[in-house]
Amino acid sequence: MGLLLVRYAEMGLKSPGVRRYFEKVLTHNMMAALARERLEAFVESQYGRLFVTTDRPEETAATLRRVFGISSLSHVRECSSEVKDIRRLALEVATPLLKDGSTFRVEARRNGVHPYTSMQLAAQAGEEIYEAHKHRGVRVDLHHPDLVVYVEVRDRRAYVFSEYLDGPGGLPMGSQGKVVALIRDERDALAAWMMMKRGCRALFVVENEETMRILERWDPEPRKVSGPAGKAVQANKAFGLVVGWSLDELQDNITLNTDVPVYHPLVGMGNEEVERRLKEIKG
Amino acid sequence: MGLLLVRYAEMGLKSPGVRRYFEKVLTHNMMAALARERLEAFVESQYGRLFVTTDRPEETAATLRRVFGISSLSHVRECSSEVKDIRRLALEVATPLLKDGSTFRVEARRNGVHPYTSMQLAAQAGEEIYEAHKHRGVRVDLHHPDLVVYVEVRDRRAYVFSEYLDGPGGLPMGSQGKVVALIRDERDALAAWMMMKRGCRALFVVENEETMRILERWDPEPRKVSGPAGKAVQANKAFGLVVGWSLDELQDNITLNTDVPVYHPLVGMGNEEVERRLKEIKG
Repeated sequence: MGLLLVRYAEMGLKSPGVRRYFEKVLTHNMMAALARERLEAFVESQYGRLFVTTDRPEETAATLRRVFGISSLSHVRECSSEVKDIRRLALEVATPLLKDGSTFRVEARRNGVHPYTSMQLAAQAGEEIYEAHKHRGVRVDLHHPDLVVYVEVRDRRAYVFSEYLDGPGGLPMGSQGKVVALIRDERDALAAWMMMKRGCRALFVVENEETMRILERWDPEPRKVSGPAGKAVQANKAFGLVVGWSLDELQDNITLNTDVPVYHPLVGMGNEEVERRLKEIKG
Repeated sequence: MGLLLVRYAEMGLKSPGVRRYFEKVLTHNMMAALARERLEAFVESQYGRLFVTTDRPEETAATLRRVFGISSLSHVRECSSEVKDIRRLALEVATPLLKDGSTFRVEARRNGVHPYTSMQLAAQAGEEIYEAHKHRGVRVDLHHPDLVVYVEVRDRRAYVFSEYLDGPGGLPMGSQGKVVALIRDERDALAAWMMMKRGCRALFVVENEETMRILERWDPEPRKVSGPAGKAVQANKAFGLVVGWSLDELQDNITLNTDVPVYHPLVGMGNEEVERRLKEIKG
């Protein structure tokens, strides 16, 4: 079994009630994304972090990196908050990652009441690793180490890891209401993606199935609607229609013949920026 | 006197007629920006580049870095396209920039008919610099040199420089039509800035003079309009109204009581991105 620590960012700023709601939406989206990939996992909320237990940690991490609202995640190992346990686990985590002559450092943080400070803990865990590997020329470098071993202590449990994997950030999809997204080309897909990242549930009016596939990697439960987009906005109480049109297209006075608000998240972007962002979401 | 080579990017993609028009608009904007800072300069177009002659090159460069449409610029020195002249000038440019033990490389490109290839030219200029400084331990490093000396040959003239300074990029302000921008807070200023960078002339409805000052650094001839923003759009044949509202504000059903199109370039951005971009334009 593997354990993942999942961090979320923006919602940390909100009130406890809003945060609980966001966490619920995020957890739901995580489970839906994993279910789509046929990955079984158990998600638990603790201390404003989420912990995911799974027997396929690599694939689970890859999938979660496309769940909006997740700012980063780490493969972690867990032990008690006792110094001797943490020393042993830090050594276990570090050993396969240290080459002859490697440099490392330990970074510790803690929350709760413990008989040690974060700095003392980092020094102790660092000593354990150094003593075990000094014959190989391994040494501490606080500024530009080859390896950082992170220790995070929360009350009676400690988590040790060596890497932060980026998530997409943003807010959990669906936590901020609905928009209707017209999907005709890749620019439209990017516009929808940006609103999804801002927390909107997108209802898709799909005119191009090929393009829609870009978004299906990001939305495990894509909701498609048919008929005129303006009607779909009203029928679903969405707060507007989203398209990826550029300034050029807008100047040609393209009109959608609709009374609902129309949003153009790409209107202020140049082609280079659009291409760069598209590459990221298609990658 | 100093000479600046100014490069523009996106417009290079357009047809020759459109490019000439863009170059005219860009040159006008450059002159207006310099006039505002009381800098005298002479701007000349050649081979799809602009050359600026000025007796205050540092201040002129700083000002031009806020002119939309400029992708980069360089302080250059000029000589004939003869190898011996280029060798001498490359050495003159490099000498004050080389420390004992520095590494360097010469990068050459050319356009026109010459008795040398770009690679031969780079090798020759590199040799000149190497021979003059080898007693100080200066040597060539093609991959990570401390200093790059650039040589650009255009027909009978050559330009030598050592640095690319970024411009804001985008398109020349005014080359893509007009928008009306409502300026109430910094987000509004950023939204307007993005449309200006896309080539729009912004007509400002200013409700906050302090905020307007951010934009005056980017628009040397700010045009302010008064009265209802919707009316201003129609009266000036602008193609819409621009505001910096976020998704949250839009969900509150704020309305401007207007029939004209309203654009929200920031609708797909998170707070972090807005803050980062604001810092850039205020910096």
